[in-house]
Parts: sequence; C-alpha cells; structure tokens
Amino acid sequence: MASEFELIARHFTPVVSGSRTGVCLGVGDDCALLTPRAGQRLAISVDTSVVNVHFPADAPPEAIGHRALAVSLSDLAAMGAEARWCLMALAIADADDDWLASFARGFHELCAATGTTLVGGDVTRGELAIGVTVMGEVPSGQALTRDGARPGDVLAVTGALGAGAGGLALWQRGERDMAHPLLMRYLRPQPRLEAGRGLLDLASAAIDVSDGLLADLGHVLKASGVGARMEVDSVPMAAGLVEALGPDAARRAALGGGDDYELLVSLPPDAMDEAVRRLASQGLALTPIGRVTADPGLAGVGEIGPHGWQHFHGGAS
Amino acid sequence: MASEFELIARHFTPVVSGSRTGVCLGVGDDCALLTPRAGQRLAISVDTSVVNVHFPADAPPEAIGHRALAVSLSDLAAMGAEARWCLMALAIADADDDWLASFARGFHELCAATGTTLVGGDVTRGELAIGVTVMGEVPSGQALTRDGARPGDVLAVTGALGAGAGGLALWQRGERDMAHPLLMRYLRPQPRLEAGRGLLDLASAAIDVSDGLLADLGHVLKASGVGARMEVDSVPMAAGLVEALGPDAARRAALGGGDDYELLVSLPPDAMDEAVRRLASQGLALTPIGRVTADPGLAGVGEIGPHGWQHFHGGAS
Repeated sequence: MASEFELIARHFTPVVSGSRTGVCLGVGDDCALLTPRAGQRLAISVDTSVVNVHFPADAPPEAIGHRALAVSLSDLAAMGAEARWCLMALAIADADDDWLASFARGFHELCAATGTTLVGGDVTRGELAIGVTVMGEVPSGQALTRDGARPGDVLAVTGALGAGAGGLALWQRGERDMAHPLLMRYLRPQPRLEAGRGLLDLASAAIDVSDGLLADLGHVLKASGVGARMEVDSVPMAAGLVEALGPDAARRAALGGGDDYELLVSLPPDAMDEAVRRLASQGLALTPIGRVTADPGLAGVGEIGPHGWQHFHGGAS
Repeated sequence: MASEFELIARHFTPVVSGSRTGVCLGVGDDCALLTPRAGQRLAISVDTSVVNVHFPADAPPEAIGHRALAVSLSDLAAMGAEARWCLMALAIADADDDWLASFARGFHELCAATGTTLVGGDVTRGELAIGVTVMGEVPSGQALTRDGARPGDVLAVTGALGAGAGGLALWQRGERDMAHPLLMRYLRPQPRLEAGRGLLDLASAAIDVSDGLLADLGHVLKASGVGARMEVDSVPMAAGLVEALGPDAARRAALGGGDDYELLVSLPPDAMDEAVRRLASQGLALTPIGRVTADPGLAGVGEIGPHGWQHFHGGAS
C-alpha cells in the first residue's frame, strides 16, 4: 500500500508554517507545534464520517472531503469559535489518484475558505472513514455553550432546515444533479462559523443542528434546565423541500431530519433585532421559532414529540 | 445501538473540569474548551489503532484501551512535550458492558498515570478502531524535532528494542501469559514522556521508535540532512527476545520490528553523561548505538539495509 500512502502524502502536505497561521511546525514530525493566542480558549472537537453511515459511498469525492471537515467545523461554529487548525485521520481501503485528488480538493478548499490549516493526521487501511479533529479559538469567557438558555429568551435558527434529510432522500431516489439546492446543502453543508462569531456577545446559548432541530433543542433545554414553546409553523424550510418531499415529510425533515448544520440559538428578546441585522449582513437569515419557558418540556409541537424524531435520523454522530 | 452509546457514555464521561487540568469545559458540549498556558507551544498528534492491523482482535480490552492512548502519547514524548489532553474517536461494531468497562479502565489508567485528561470524542458504528488525538505542551523553542541531528552527535535509544515485534510473534504463537515481559511490552507499551522531557535541553533531535529503529533513524537522518554509522551490536535487545525468537530474528525485531515506542535521540557527545544520569534516575537506560556523520547514508548495518525492514512491519501507522 506504499504507493497509496505516497499518493496521500502528495495530496495532503501542502501545509505552510508561519506566524499568520499559528503553525510553528506542520505535517512531517511526530507532532505539529502550534501557537495559541493569549486571552483565548482553545475549542476542540472531533467527528468521524463513515461511508454509508454519514455519506453515500458514491458521493462525489470532493463533497466527501468538504463534508467531513464541515461537520467538525460546525461544532466550532456552535461555540462561536474561530477555526484555526485541523488534523485528519483517514481510513481508506483503496483509492486512485483521481479520487484522492478530488477528495483533497474538497477538503483544502473548505480549509482555505474558513482559515483552517491542516497540521497533521494519519492514514490506516480500512473501510472509508474520515475523522477530523478541529481546533479553534474563542475569547476567554465568551464561548457559546448549551447551558445558557433563560426563560423568556427567543429561540432562533440560521438559514433554513430540512436540506440534510431532504438531500439524502433525493440522493436515495437517484437524483445526481449536484446543482440541486437540496443535494448541494446535504453534500456540501456550510459551517456557520461567521454567524457563530457574530452572535458571541448576543446569544445566551447555541448548538448546531446535526441530530435534528427537536433533538438538538432538547440538548439545549436539558443543559439549561428550562423548557420551550415552539412555533412549528415558523420553522424555515429549505428551498425545494416541500416540492421534493411533500408537505408532511418536508416538515418532518425540517424538525427532525438533522445534518443541516445550521445554528440554533437562544437570545434575550432585546438582542434579536441586532442579531438579525448582523446575520443579514452575512447574507444569512435568522428566524425566531419559539420561546424559552421556565416550565420544563417542549410545548407547541402538537403530535410530534422530540423522541419520535430520533428514529428518523438513526445515525450515530 | 442506543444502549451501547449509553454504555459508552457511562464509561467515558468521568471528566472533571478545573484549573489544574486546564479544562474549562469538558465532555458534553459541541467542543471542549481548554486553557493553554502562556509561553508554551501546543503539540498535537493523532494516531488510529485498527483491529487486526495494529492489535489482535482477541487482545485483552484493557490492553487495547491502554495501547491506543500510549501510541499517541509516544508522539508527545518524542517532542519532549508534557501530556495534557486527549480526544477519542471510537468506531465499534458491538460491545458488551464488561468489554467496554475493561477497555475504558485501560484508557483511563494511562490517562491518570500521564496527567492526560479526556475532554471529548465521538462514537460511530464500524470495525473496531480507536483514533486518539493527544495534545501536550512544550516550552516555546525547546521542542525536540527530527531535523536537529548534527555530525558528531551520539545516537542513543531508551530502554530496549524488539519487544513490539517479539510480543506480536509470541501472541501469534498462542502465548497468552500477560505477565510475559514481551507480551507486556507489546500490548502495554509505556510512552517515554518523562524521558522526552528530561532530554529537552540536552538532545538535538528525537523520534519515537514506531516504524522500527532503522526506519525511524532514516526519518531523522533525512530530516537533518546527515548520515550515521551504526554500532549494531550495541542495540539493546528486550529481555527474553533472543530466547523467544532466536538470535537472528531477535536482531531483526530490534532493528526493524517497530511498535517499541522507545525514543531514539541524537545528542552532542558532551551531553551524553548527563542524559544517561537523568534517565537512570527514572529507572530507564539510555544506550549509545552509533554516531551521526556528515556523509549521507547509513553505515555499519552490514547486509541489513533500512529499506528491507519496512516490509517486516507492514502495518500503516
């Protein structure tokens, strides 16, 4: 397998050291050496994307590379952290040069777009899986966590929901037009890093929508010791979702589908206008979808309970 | 698989935050939040251990947990870094509570012994694989790298070599006495963190012996732009190795077997006595095995070329 490792080395070593990137020593020694900045917390997370669990085996390799990094970066976005560095642990059974070149291009392009520097990794033989460790920085004491939601806060989501589940459904039906907005959003999700940073001093809590809106809302409510009343009809649905799935399945996708990688935030009501304005300047909508209540539990979801949706997603992430 | 995830959560969440550990926020949010110390570089590395590639499927689960962390910590040791934090990306097909409890015990015990705090991770379904990202700190400008070896330096190794390959050979023959020194060293390697830190101001270059002594020496020589003359007869062989494998296979194991996780260091000759003294105080031998030369290439290895040994190990690490 030496030749494959050489291929991989060729596609994954264009790493530059420098003071701008905070990289003192990059790929090629036992460790990378990084220079964290003073006054910052180091935010770190790892997510593993497994073939046929988290993405289809026949997805475009460029999308697989993009997506594996995007889902990890989304965790930094949810803390309001600035992306800085990443490591990739790649398991691969076999691969040709074209596949790897395309996979690497998708990964590197998202690195470049988000200011993330790849500083190391390893390669093992196995079923295709990409474990990406991301590191970012957030000013001390300012990180957005799950436990800060307070009764009276507005709950709001960035962008629109349901494209993750909707895109998967389309893919399973054989749709292969990568320009289809649902496929684009499913296979090339955009981590909301800029939005998270823009909300640092406004939001009281945040999480990224990976398990599904209701499940992720449940995580925030549990961590914060509060409840919520949803306005289900306000949940913004991804463009083309109703046309693709029909109204009922579209709503299920938006509420429980997961893999959207938008942000769900809790904000004091008087912060909402400024938050909407800031995200609008990024071209991103911020839509109120409910309120935090002192009473525990989730009201306003009608017959749809939060636990019912967990089965829809099914994956372990 | 929900119950398995609950089991895993139970075994892997005893994480404490606190100023002593530098953990501002541990397992349970989108990211962990850490507090790097001023004046330090952050050293980071990831290694993935795959069943039947890096360890036998029927190895004791406690050893699997220990070993997966140890091989990553060994990369910190090779830079002279102090271990601080880790993340675990676990892929697992199925597991019972006893297996997970034992696996977690092996992992946590090595965490405790090395001052490493588990701050996060993820779990996916798949063939058993453990990806461990480790982070450590090393004073700015002091890290041991591969590129500092200078002509005239002494080459030396910690401990003794060959137990990785020797232990594997014994395991494959059916030996299951975990008290056998070769099995112990193969399945429960000890990352040489204290040794690496002890040599920070003495050594000019360092690497851990994971691919095999000659292969790893080759990495140092290439990075440093130098050559070496080996004294092959001086290479310390693990206790019991000759008895287990015979003299020829024992030497092959010591020179090319890999998986020993000792340190190979390059030191100016006048630093050698102090280095030996410091490591002796840790109960660890430091044995000279050759000298760095200005001429490129590797002399003194007789018929044994560095490239021949790469086939012995075979694994991708």
